[in-house]
Amino acid sequence: MQHTDLSKLGEFGLIDHLTSKIELKQNSSALGVGDDAAIISSKKDTLVTTDILLQGIHFDLTYTPLMHLGYKAAIVNFSDIYAMGGVPTQITVALGISSKFSVEMVDELYNGIKLACEGHNVDIVGGDTSASLTGLTIAITCVGEVEKGKAITRSGAKENDLICVTGDLGAAYMGLQLLEREKKVLEGKNGMQPDFDGFDYILQRQLKPEARKDILALLKEKDIKPTSMIDVSDGLASELLHICKSSKVGCRIYEERIPIDYQTASMAEEFNMNLVTAALNGGEDYELLFTVPLEDHDKIIQFQEVKIIGHIAKENLGAAMIARGSEQEVPLVAQGWVKEE
Amino acid sequence: MQHTDLSKLGEFGLIDHLTSKIELKQNSSALGVGDDAAIISSKKDTLVTTDILLQGIHFDLTYTPLMHLGYKAAIVNFSDIYAMGGVPTQITVALGISSKFSVEMVDELYNGIKLACEGHNVDIVGGDTSASLTGLTIAITCVGEVEKGKAITRSGAKENDLICVTGDLGAAYMGLQLLEREKKVLEGKNGMQPDFDGFDYILQRQLKPEARKDILALLKEKDIKPTSMIDVSDGLASELLHICKSSKVGCRIYEERIPIDYQTASMAEEFNMNLVTAALNGGEDYELLFTVPLEDHDKIIQFQEVKIIGHIAKENLGAAMIARGSEQEVPLVAQGWVKEE
Repeated sequence: MQHTDLSKLGEFGLIDHLTSKIELKQNSSALGVGDDAAIISSKKDTLVTTDILLQGIHFDLTYTPLMHLGYKAAIVNFSDIYAMGGVPTQITVALGISSKFSVEMVDELYNGIKLACEGHNVDIVGGDTSASLTGLTIAITCVGEVEKGKAITRSGAKENDLICVTGDLGAAYMGLQLLEREKKVLEGKNGMQPDFDGFDYILQRQLKPEARKDILALLKEKDIKPTSMIDVSDGLASELLHICKSSKVGCRIYEERIPIDYQTASMAEEFNMNLVTAALNGGEDYELLFTVPLEDHDKIIQFQEVKIIGHIAKENLGAAMIARGSEQEVPLVAQGWVKEE
Repeated sequence: MQHTDLSKLGEFGLIDHLTSKIELKQNSSALGVGDDAAIISSKKDTLVTTDILLQGIHFDLTYTPLMHLGYKAAIVNFSDIYAMGGVPTQITVALGISSKFSVEMVDELYNGIKLACEGHNVDIVGGDTSASLTGLTIAITCVGEVEKGKAITRSGAKENDLICVTGDLGAAYMGLQLLEREKKVLEGKNGMQPDFDGFDYILQRQLKPEARKDILALLKEKDIKPTSMIDVSDGLASELLHICKSSKVGCRIYEERIPIDYQTASMAEEFNMNLVTAALNGGEDYELLFTVPLEDHDKIIQFQEVKIIGHIAKENLGAAMIARGSEQEVPLVAQGWVKEE
């Protein structure tokens, strides 16, 4: 890759360079990059969510391609909007960039962001770009829209509602473990290629996650209205506890019903790790966790991409998982906060 | 100040701690902190702007009190919304926090943000909090509203329009010079107090800037509709060039008409610096620069807080300043990008 110094372009030059070819596709994007603020003109409710990604905490550039990083940084925000039952429409991108980065590297990052935006019809309408003394920081804010009053929050789950989750869980976490192991193995060994054979799925889940736009379309098509919804970013246990707390309910899920991919299980075995812990607490799955009324059962079981993993219970029963092949209840505990050493 | 380790609270604990007492005041804030996204319900156009502040680039904690930093981080975003002729209504706050910070320090920062929000009736509706390996990062996104189609962009300036600026310029920059000098003088000398006597105004302009909400109210009251507007964050010259480029016009401003405070002039003399350079390129003034049709002249000159500093010219004449007491034209040049060493 060429290495063009950022200082050659200067701040305004870099912004022009990054944003010059951006087209606006959303009708609601009345004004994009290039003024004090973007203008969004819509008759719907507006959704706003922000995520900040910091080098060394959320990503490791030794094994994360910049384009994938940009893609993921955008996707995690779209996922939050889908989790409200909305459609992402615009993002702003704030970057803190160390002088070690070249223009070409920033382009790679930005191309990943753009690719994610293209896949979800999202416009880049603003941002901020700054030098950084300390590596890369990416703060993306996503704006979305939803019919007035129709947003799906975390607080509407009712007793006996079915708890549903899309896709499978724990894969992104096991992908991360694999990347970390190969990094350690290869440290100092130039030219060696890591051995990722047969683990493409868990790597993709870590490096290039998707947001479940498809599920929102399915739910709409079948006229299913979730009573609560959240995306799985910090792990199933943590997200379930969020729904229970916000909805003032308890829950029971069944270990044997938690959807887990074969590669995830195989890698967990290789690492001698508890598979269920990876699925419950691994995080970064960006699947949707939602509750529906019991009467939607027959519709939901027709969705291949959705599994019913349990039900909502009375608040005083707390949140617990029924262990596989037993009736033992294991209380769900939240993880969170990657502690800095 | 007490020092409570952030790890004692954990990520979710910290978010709860920071946001538990937040009240929503804006009618349009349908849902605030605590879900995947905030919900904003308004019939007006929505404005969105983002700023990222990085330790060592935008602020130096040796002389910036955390509360002031939080205040400023919010104000610079409000200023962008006012510069669109809008009203700021909501913000999201994304923080990257090093483990060297205590809960009390984060509280100070957050209290500054809250104070700014209270002064401008803005709701904190969301955010993200993360550990950081490398100091403090603050990324704030501000949402505002404006009557449909009434936002004031940078692109509407017309030939012969008057160029107006609020307040005075260069003070924040000279305040920064003073703080930097005192920092150097006092390095290693514990217990000594810096000498800021008689320079309270320029220090305040650097450490606790305000956004010109008052001017928007005045313009509305007198039924003046600026043809273009921008806030002065990077310096008058840079902002004028933005307006000229977006509006496809040129401009002439008069050096002698640039509003400069006595303390700014006095400090520039002490530093043996060019006063006009400080006013043109210093930045961080957060004043409003706008253009109005010539026929508004008689209304504008009644505003004590607004000065007419020149006029818009044909595009082929370029952007220039007429030097004091002469007819010499000095081309305006943009600054930008604080280069990292």
